[in-house]
Amino acid sequence: MTAVVLTDIADLDLALDRATAAARALRTISDADRAGYLDAVAEALDAAVDELVPIAQRETHLTEARLTGEVARTTGQLRLLAAAVREGSYLEAVIDHAAPAAAPPRPDLRRVLIPLGPVVNFAASNFPFAFSVAGGDTAAALAAGCPVIVKAHSGHRDLSRRTADIVADALAAAGAPDGTFALAEGREVATALVAHPAIKAGSFTGSVAGGRALFDIAVRRPDPIPFYGELGSANPVVVTAAADAARASEIATGLAASFTLGAGQFCTKPGLVFVPEGSVIAEHARTAIEGAAPARLLTDGIGRAFVDGWSALASTAGIEVLTVATAESEGVTPGLARVTLDTFRSTPALHEELFGPVTLLIEYADPAVLIAALAELEGSLTATLHAADGEDVTALVEVLSERAGRVLFGGWPTGVAVTWSQNHGGPWPATTSLFTSVGVTGIRRFQRPVAFQDAPDTLLPPALREDNPLGIPRRVDGALVQGADR
Amino acid sequence: MTAVVLTDIADLDLALDRATAAARALRTISDADRAGYLDAVAEALDAAVDELVPIAQRETHLTEARLTGEVARTTGQLRLLAAAVREGSYLEAVIDHAAPAAAPPRPDLRRVLIPLGPVVNFAASNFPFAFSVAGGDTAAALAAGCPVIVKAHSGHRDLSRRTADIVADALAAAGAPDGTFALAEGREVATALVAHPAIKAGSFTGSVAGGRALFDIAVRRPDPIPFYGELGSANPVVVTAAADAARASEIATGLAASFTLGAGQFCTKPGLVFVPEGSVIAEHARTAIEGAAPARLLTDGIGRAFVDGWSALASTAGIEVLTVATAESEGVTPGLARVTLDTFRSTPALHEELFGPVTLLIEYADPAVLIAALAELEGSLTATLHAADGEDVTALVEVLSERAGRVLFGGWPTGVAVTWSQNHGGPWPATTSLFTSVGVTGIRRFQRPVAFQDAPDTLLPPALREDNPLGIPRRVDGALVQGADR
Repeated sequence: MTAVVLTDIADLDLALDRATAAARALRTISDADRAGYLDAVAEALDAAVDELVPIAQRETHLTEARLTGEVARTTGQLRLLAAAVREGSYLEAVIDHAAPAAAPPRPDLRRVLIPLGPVVNFAASNFPFAFSVAGGDTAAALAAGCPVIVKAHSGHRDLSRRTADIVADALAAAGAPDGTFALAEGREVATALVAHPAIKAGSFTGSVAGGRALFDIAVRRPDPIPFYGELGSANPVVVTAAADAARASEIATGLAASFTLGAGQFCTKPGLVFVPEGSVIAEHARTAIEGAAPARLLTDGIGRAFVDGWSALASTAGIEVLTVATAESEGVTPGLARVTLDTFRSTPALHEELFGPVTLLIEYADPAVLIAALAELEGSLTATLHAADGEDVTALVEVLSERAGRVLFGGWPTGVAVTWSQNHGGPWPATTSLFTSVGVTGIRRFQRPVAFQDAPDTLLPPALREDNPLGIPRRVDGALVQGADR
Repeated sequence: MTAVVLTDIADLDLALDRATAAARALRTISDADRAGYLDAVAEALDAAVDELVPIAQRETHLTEARLTGEVARTTGQLRLLAAAVREGSYLEAVIDHAAPAAAPPRPDLRRVLIPLGPVVNFAASNFPFAFSVAGGDTAAALAAGCPVIVKAHSGHRDLSRRTADIVADALAAAGAPDGTFALAEGREVATALVAHPAIKAGSFTGSVAGGRALFDIAVRRPDPIPFYGELGSANPVVVTAAADAARASEIATGLAASFTLGAGQFCTKPGLVFVPEGSVIAEHARTAIEGAAPARLLTDGIGRAFVDGWSALASTAGIEVLTVATAESEGVTPGLARVTLDTFRSTPALHEELFGPVTLLIEYADPAVLIAALAELEGSLTATLHAADGEDVTALVEVLSERAGRVLFGGWPTGVAVTWSQNHGGPWPATTSLFTSVGVTGIRRFQRPVAFQDAPDTLLPPALREDNPLGIPRRVDGALVQGADR
């Protein structure tokens, strides 16, 4: 079987009718069955790894090892969300029994989260599996019970189509309703989907400009819909003077590895590194990347944007270029530059993410001025602090957690664990929302609450029935009640 | 002490600097202390009820009994949210310990919700206490730890100022940071607040036009912010043929009481009532409201809008006017009209909320056509189903829960219990969001997640420290762990 692929806006109404019908059908299907869909997709992708990875290699220039690992991450993500659906906390079930003697009397009232309806997810260029056709947004939407139309990224079209066929087959074999999943291609279809009355939410991983354009369409509809964009992130790193004195060389090695990982094409790439005046981290990092082999970027367009961005950066007044990023036919080499904190603060263009293997070191003299400068940063997905053991960094932690969605103590932000606790999101422009796009709690993006008042038990969703047939955790009359052991 | 009252946009920068400083200070204050602020405000309002209610009577024409009850509801709301802050689930704390042996190895990762920062709340006209200066949005924002600027409703300016003074006094006496609370007046200041970079979220209860205008400002900012509008809601009621046969008279009496309660000025007023062809509910309802005393509406503007709206409704082709709503100097009397389902479906203007004591009965012949018509309705806060015992109404429940945020079985939607389980929100235009504006879970509107990776225990927020000093419920390594008994 092949997946439905939408390439013409004339086909959208019919496709959305099918998705709307699927949304209704999904509401009558048990959570256990729906969790089974996620597991079935995971199993099918794992079984196809030897077929898929070579397609992805050809289209993205990423290595076999990286891509094979990414398939495992993607299927692990699907299975974690399936487990979360079975556990049931994601339904946020709350029961308050009637209180006829209260003043005023209170009815029986029960709240649960229900799926929003059909959603459109925009695949990213830089994770052809984990943030693409069967990636985190698709897994979260399916976990919530929403049909999904994935806008394929043109940077890996063949992989997207083949993955879509595998997903469609696995869903059909597992019993998912017709219309649960489709693929879409092309900008015109994509924007028409965001504007379509049957679409109830959108999600996106990509550039600030592209994400903002789609966000604007979503919020300007006659009936605005949530649009979850994961856009741009400079991912600041702060090195205290004490950490610099204790381990400049080690920090430099870690930085060099992190900002060049995957040719710098991670949304969590550390792009701004605040170091004390006189730090030798820059020099050590330059040594670490000397002789790095050129790396081909994901697409020609990304390659051109990187070259343009680096040229603009390198020619900015006050910038000291430490390593020239070069772009050859065989790929790009990393770029490293340095600037004073004063120049950085007065040059807004330096605050923005530059996608690719480049990082900017910013020298600060006064820690108090550093904190003021950090407070001026745009929002980021991550902020990383390198401090010495026992150092009082309360004020730094405070300002970094204001500006980012994940704060790291030591280590490097590249690498995003898929867990219950993960938060991959942050203040604008990191994301457009108050939610994560990685990890279990990302399901909440595709749900809304409904309360049932004085409903007969048989007409309630199973999650809210008196005898708790799903065995899920619930809040009953104000107290948390654990779910059944499983 | 008097509250800060912002009436000039020239004062905003300074006021927002104070609010931003308060936001930082609030993050260092314990949850127990912050819960104490809410309790202190509740206590102060309860103590001032004899002073406040007469001011409210004069400005709103609402009765003493209604207003006294509303103060109790407002202070109960503050105390419930204080209890929720102490209970701690609202922090959604999640801990995943490091898994160095996993592939890839996982760091220690801990997630918690933190306050967004300063917010602006727009008070409603129709609840001068419960949805106004110290109302649900203010309580939820303070519970989250956000400083609040309340845009006063011009319909009860004196009450707003006096309430604001009491709130400011109570907060100061309880030790809340300077800048935690302020009042704002006037449209120019209000729109400037929504656009101000220091404001991180907005909330609003009012008309579709007013809410949409503010929503548009919020989402068109360079850095869009969430704007939680509770706008318009027609609140459909469905009476099945079996229910109509069994208890038409009882339903009519309940309907008459509900749509005229508070002169029909509730956001949950039942505005569309779907009855089987030949039902005598309309005639019974007409009898029930005959001789009703005229009621003055909240403001002259609302009175004019009601008269205009009723005129437009009554002159719509196909409308049968059963009771003429009259507008005299002493107030308005209720309006009742009837239409066929066909005419209703082909006349979009009939689908919209008309604020005030009017309701429209819609006669249906074919239950299948009824379901199709219900699916076409705009989103509502509530939907009510009157059915006979044991009747199979699965399809009706399904479509009503698609179109509304609260589904009632029997009874009437006016009256919104403030509980853990309440949901006061629904698809556009009922609300702009996936959240409730009443009840405990409304706190989530003013929070965002932050994850801490490999943080030293002493640098973690108390909610995430290993020994759980707050004694709150948390998810640890995937399993829910109950909080300490309290």
